[in-house]
Amino acid sequence: MASPPRFDPRPIGVFDSGVGGLTVLVALAARFPEERFLYLGDTARVPYGTKSARTVAAYTLRAADFLLQRDVKGIVIACNTASALGMGALQAHAEVPVLGVIEPGAEQALAHSRGGRIAVLATRSTVVSGAYPGAIHESDPARAVQSLPCPLFVPLVEEGWLDHPVTATVAQTYLAELQADVDTVILGCTHYPLLKGMLEGLRPDLAWIDSAQAVAQRIALWFEHGVVARGARPADKPPIECVVTDDPVQFGRVALPFMGSIPLGSVEMVDL
Amino acid sequence: MASPPRFDPRPIGVFDSGVGGLTVLVALAARFPEERFLYLGDTARVPYGTKSARTVAAYTLRAADFLLQRDVKGIVIACNTASALGMGALQAHAEVPVLGVIEPGAEQALAHSRGGRIAVLATRSTVVSGAYPGAIHESDPARAVQSLPCPLFVPLVEEGWLDHPVTATVAQTYLAELQADVDTVILGCTHYPLLKGMLEGLRPDLAWIDSAQAVAQRIALWFEHGVVARGARPADKPPIECVVTDDPVQFGRVALPFMGSIPLGSVEMVDL
Repeated sequence: MASPPRFDPRPIGVFDSGVGGLTVLVALAARFPEERFLYLGDTARVPYGTKSARTVAAYTLRAADFLLQRDVKGIVIACNTASALGMGALQAHAEVPVLGVIEPGAEQALAHSRGGRIAVLATRSTVVSGAYPGAIHESDPARAVQSLPCPLFVPLVEEGWLDHPVTATVAQTYLAELQADVDTVILGCTHYPLLKGMLEGLRPDLAWIDSAQAVAQRIALWFEHGVVARGARPADKPPIECVVTDDPVQFGRVALPFMGSIPLGSVEMVDL
Repeated sequence: MASPPRFDPRPIGVFDSGVGGLTVLVALAARFPEERFLYLGDTARVPYGTKSARTVAAYTLRAADFLLQRDVKGIVIACNTASALGMGALQAHAEVPVLGVIEPGAEQALAHSRGGRIAVLATRSTVVSGAYPGAIHESDPARAVQSLPCPLFVPLVEEGWLDHPVTATVAQTYLAELQADVDTVILGCTHYPLLKGMLEGLRPDLAWIDSAQAVAQRIALWFEHGVVARGARPADKPPIECVVTDDPVQFGRVALPFMGSIPLGSVEMVDL
């Protein structure tokens, strides 16, 4: 078997239904500055979290096809709903490695939990899929899991109401449903990490799991194990290029709070 | 010129981005029991109110094409955002009469106002389009208009939080922005009439305009003026058939609170 090339200049594709996956993208770009990333946000059809399994799987496959046409060396499904409902079909279909956010998040939750129940806050479609309990039970079949749909968090985050009293009231309403033996909570939607400060403030006794770092850790393993070769980004190439299915200007505006210190490169519009 | 046929058994097409247009559909079905209605909800791509003019116009044209293929005798665009952004292209394109919700709503607001400022509560895309101020100024160029985006109302209604304290707080937050000289408020999104009771409770001094009745009034004029012929629905034909682009079962569940006493007929799924 030929040894893999030492460097692979192709980008890593990162897919999300909209802007939420930028929380994962930013974690990856910060940790792997030598890589190029191609972010695809399906902003013309966002959100996925309220849509059916069949529709989400079809959208996820179309998005992956697009990224493969753009010659990515690997695909990260940053959207929890797409990971929950589209990964199976996608892994059978793609000729490059594919990573979702469910399994890394579940693993990180198990590492942080002191043996209590693990709660999953997620969109309704992710909850209905049972993907998180499934991933947790792969490692620990007896672990108690509570799934809690939090459908209003996405529109509140997209409004930018991160510190708004309404958002605090909604959060309190949802968290009141947590069972008493929960010790660890998975933020099972890429929008939710933007509320992590507020949620930790309401329940500082719980471990709050954001899968972005867990995903970055898995990508580090891709490189270590030679699943894909590292990049070697020239200084004049931007680390991030974005493709969206709706207005690029609107995307840029909503994306900014997610980006931290990472510069947002070009934003192109396509019809999927 | 041949006189128009006395009866036309074809359905009237009613289009919305999702379930919100059912408020208009129900008003039409109640007023015209002899008609058949074909409701198309683009639930796989809902919401439109956060998307760009270009994308909404493209979706609206595709939806109209579908309704025309199903041989409707007229089209009602029940979605305010689609009316605001897609009507121009559509009226040039369709070979049957097309009615949006903007103009009837604007006219009804002018009829109810005592000369004060007219406020329009709507999605961000409808506000940005300027369609309501445009329609109001067609009749009364000097009338003061205030446009107020209320993007959280749609997800709150879709959650069914119609009487929830969070919804009341969100409503208070939005209504606090109303200028002092407002006397009439247009509910410029088909979801908002489900909050009419709460909004009227908060500001009983204002006239609250729901365009569903105004749309029904315009359809009555279609019949009176022979723009289209009346239907003659046999008792064994359901008054309403629905087509959606995502899961029909989920649609049925969310649709129920909108329907009142009107029975929901078949729900079919298509890919647009």
